[in-house]
Amino acid sequence: MASLRPLAVIAGVGNGSGTGAAAARLFSKNGYSIALIGRSHGGDSLKKFADELNSSGGNAAPFTIQAYSPDTIKSTFAAIREHFPPSSSALTVAIYNTAFGAWKSFLDVTPEDVQESVNVNITSAFAFSREAILAFKQNEISKDTGKRGTLIFTGATASIRGNVTTSVFSAGKHAKRALSQSLAKEFGKDNIHVAHAIIDGGIITDRTRGYRKDPEWEKDLDRRLDPESIAASYLYLANQDRTAWTWELDLRPAHEKW
Amino acid sequence: MASLRPLAVIAGVGNGSGTGAAAARLFSKNGYSIALIGRSHGGDSLKKFADELNSSGGNAAPFTIQAYSPDTIKSTFAAIREHFPPSSSALTVAIYNTAFGAWKSFLDVTPEDVQESVNVNITSAFAFSREAILAFKQNEISKDTGKRGTLIFTGATASIRGNVTTSVFSAGKHAKRALSQSLAKEFGKDNIHVAHAIIDGGIITDRTRGYRKDPEWEKDLDRRLDPESIAASYLYLANQDRTAWTWELDLRPAHEKW
Amino acid sequence: MASLRPLAVIAGVGNGSGTGAAAARLFSKNGYSIALIGRSHGGDSLKKFADELNSSGGNAAPFTIQAYSPDTIKSTFAAIREHFPPSSSALTVAIYNTAFGAWKSFLDVTPEDVQESVNVNITSAFAFSREAILAFKQNEISKDTGKRGTLIFTGATASIRGNVTTSVFSAGKHAKRALSQSLAKEFGKDNIHVAHAIIDGGIITDRTRGYRKDPEWEKDLDRRLDPESIAASYLYLANQDRTAWTWELDLRPAHEKW
Amino acid sequence: MASLRPLAVIAGVGNGSGTGAAAARLFSKNGYSIALIGRSHGGDSLKKFADELNSSGGNAAPFTIQAYSPDTIKSTFAAIREHFPPSSSALTVAIYNTAFGAWKSFLDVTPEDVQESVNVNITSAFAFSREAILAFKQNEISKDTGKRGTLIFTGATASIRGNVTTSVFSAGKHAKRALSQSLAKEFGKDNIHVAHAIIDGGIITDRTRGYRKDPEWEKDLDRRLDPESIAASYLYLANQDRTAWTWELDLRPAHEKW
Repeated sequence: MASLRPLAVIAGVGNGSGTGAAAARLFSKNGYSIALIGRSHGGDSLKKFADELNSSGGNAAPFTIQAYSPDTIKSTFAAIREHFPPSSSALTVAIYNTAFGAWKSFLDVTPEDVQESVNVNITSAFAFSREAILAFKQNEISKDTGKRGTLIFTGATASIRGNVTTSVFSAGKHAKRALSQSLAKEFGKDNIHVAHAIIDGGIITDRTRGYRKDPEWEKDLDRRLDPESIAASYLYLANQDRTAWTWELDLRPAHEKW
Repeated sequence: MASLRPLAVIAGVGNGSGTGAAAARLFSKNGYSIALIGRSHGGDSLKKFADELNSSGGNAAPFTIQAYSPDTIKSTFAAIREHFPPSSSALTVAIYNTAFGAWKSFLDVTPEDVQESVNVNITSAFAFSREAILAFKQNEISKDTGKRGTLIFTGATASIRGNVTTSVFSAGKHAKRALSQSLAKEFGKDNIHVAHAIIDGGIITDRTRGYRKDPEWEKDLDRRLDPESIAASYLYLANQDRTAWTWELDLRPAHEKW
Repeated sequence: MASLRPLAVIAGVGNGSGTGAAAARLFSKNGYSIALIGRSHGGDSLKKFADELNSSGGNAAPFTIQAYSPDTIKSTFAAIREHFPPSSSALTVAIYNTAFGAWKSFLDVTPEDVQESVNVNITSAFAFSREAILAFKQNEISKDTGKRGTLIFTGATASIRGNVTTSVFSAGKHAKRALSQSLAKEFGKDNIHVAHAIIDGGIITDRTRGYRKDPEWEKDLDRRLDPESIAASYLYLANQDRTAWTWELDLRPAHEKW
Repeated sequence: MASLRPLAVIAGVGNGSGTGAAAARLFSKNGYSIALIGRSHGGDSLKKFADELNSSGGNAAPFTIQAYSPDTIKSTFAAIREHFPPSSSALTVAIYNTAFGAWKSFLDVTPEDVQESVNVNITSAFAFSREAILAFKQNEISKDTGKRGTLIFTGATASIRGNVTTSVFSAGKHAKRALSQSLAKEFGKDNIHVAHAIIDGGIITDRTRGYRKDPEWEKDLDRRLDPESIAASYLYLANQDRTAWTWELDLRPAHEKW
């Protein structure tokens, strides 16, 4: 077992500028092999990002999917374990960082919006959790941390509060949070650690840069979350020892109004 | 408008012994026409229950569905408004009382369990809310209560807490609660009241009588919720005036441990 | 016992225009004797208000205190039971409606502010609860409601959320809410019902009329809480039967942003 | 400024075996001078503990108090700044780790119990916060973390839930949590970070060893919190950079039932 390299599976990596990517970089730098799950958006951004990690001494592989669904998640994990076989890699960290929202007045919400939120936030999260936990159960308990694995969910303010225009998003996020709490309670006794981070504020990414077009905001470290700092909290969670595990923490910029 | 009879739509009526049925009886007794939505379980219990209401001076109609889905909800509301046309009935109360859970260890949860929870607790709840709110928007503001309509969701302890064996149930219930809060915040300004009741304890129904087989529990008024008392809280909520609306209340028996 | 008249003790009555006074009027109209506890503000408003209740067929008495303290609460209950002796009155409802806040920047908060919040919101609330519960324990269980007594606390948004300028207020209100939950859990088994109402919005009273000086707000039923409607919720709580008790509900105007 | 040594003030150190002491050891090891605040329990344990830190290369001083009160806190901070003057030390971390509970049936609670909870959990916490924030305001913003200081409160399950036998404890802990949230919201804009840790489970200390007398529990790393691991979370919080601050996290052992 001692020779197994730790493997982190990260779903929701986007174009490499957000939380999932920052987590991938940080866990890679800390010795983890990285399996990247992300949707193709007509390009090969996931492959490019894996190349970036590998050129920095990492051991990463991209697993591009067309859409989030339980079946896709299941087959992706199978592909991951073929690429990073249990004989050489121990899947010890799984991060579910993807989400879908549809910020609109409730009467403009379509059944397709609700379905997409369900697919991304709920049914695929159940499938992802299942695969992660089944993999963790194969691991021995780490002598360092006293755990078999860590499953982390990226949450949001909407995970704990519904609001005008967030019915679709907050329904999905609430469900995912409930899942994470149920799992934390059920699998703690198996030394599997499940955590949920409530991101309360805007994260600086290529996407938010693009639609905010607000250079002042970009420069003001006190007003936006940095993906690297979120990633640092995920690494901290993954390293917590068995005597003091966090299920939930919130993260927001210094000057955030809340 | 003064001549319109109020209409309550109640989804999740079961065999006539639970919360939905008690609400139907109470709102019927208080002058509401009643549209009953429920699944057929191979019988015509919904029709029998409508007959019971009608033989007590009520004006009720059954709308049996095969399964909960957004399409079914939409077509059922169309059928309801054909039966209780807007020219004679004002749909002012809608109660979403149905739920689905699968109380099992997470690793025994099937994709079908998750899907059924999504259908019943989430996508159909979105569709039900949409139909109710669209109907409410047609109403004038009541001179008595200052509202156009009241939409009530039956919640549970699992709505606010995930637990071992409740991943499927609590994910669905959390999502429904988030929906109810989003709606309460968005439509309050339109004088539409959305409420969420957290039922924290066992309710005495034919079903719970059947699987508990515990006559002591049945007799002990301090240890189980009575559907009629839950229904009384729903009528209280529907009658709250515009100056003091409740989004959420909890309900439990006197001796419940919590 | 059947001949005992129910007695409601209400602390925090002010000048007769707020929640405590509205509760007194409503419970008086519903057959309760009323013991009014309030601070003298240099006048005899409490006596005038008792006279008002008595001239409408009520049976009320004022118990003016100089300041809230555990000792004062204890001696006031003794005076109340001398005036309304257990031989003729059953103390079945107790409402703790008083509060103290100091809405200011934290660095402007004085030790006196904190002390006053502690006195009014905490130590006197403990004393009030003790006297109420000891009195309830003397009652037989009501055949109608299955309870010995109902203790109701008036809470606020600050009961569940600290905020800028509310450190003093929210500390006191959080403590009071914790007390109410502890009591609800401990004394439910004795058929004593403890409830907590979260008032989320501005209440229209002489005081708020005075400092808002906003006739539009006064007239707009959708934007301010009416003391009578809050009182109606307290009566509803007091009448809930043993099978379905509410510990907590929120109350806000239809158009409140939250 | 670059030459100022960071100073951590830690209240609630006990005999050196608990959370406060573990935090003192860890911050000392990380280069902080340490001001220890604790009650004398008839001995000089605080001085002995300071000696321990100093003999390991630390720079610690004991400030023994007789009882927690706002005045005592104020004069203790004055003594601390005399010992660790602003000209050489920058007070950048303050940890309020002390608490008082009285685990008993509500009717056994005395006014003295309530008063002690108020003194330790509330009025002294307000005073401690004031002194810490006034000191932080003197600091420049750290180039590393973007903060002027970090104020951490040790909370408990009772901080978010009242329960049978915890009325005194949970009232105090709820109030302290409300204070911490108010401060986090008010002083974030001044780059002052306020955090609250919910300790959910038994911590292994000399005291718990003593009254549990359960060697199995002591040995079982999955069932009790380790003070060093809690301290590690405090150091993590103190080092969070301005783009991603945590107000609240929970901590519990792997096998805790919750």
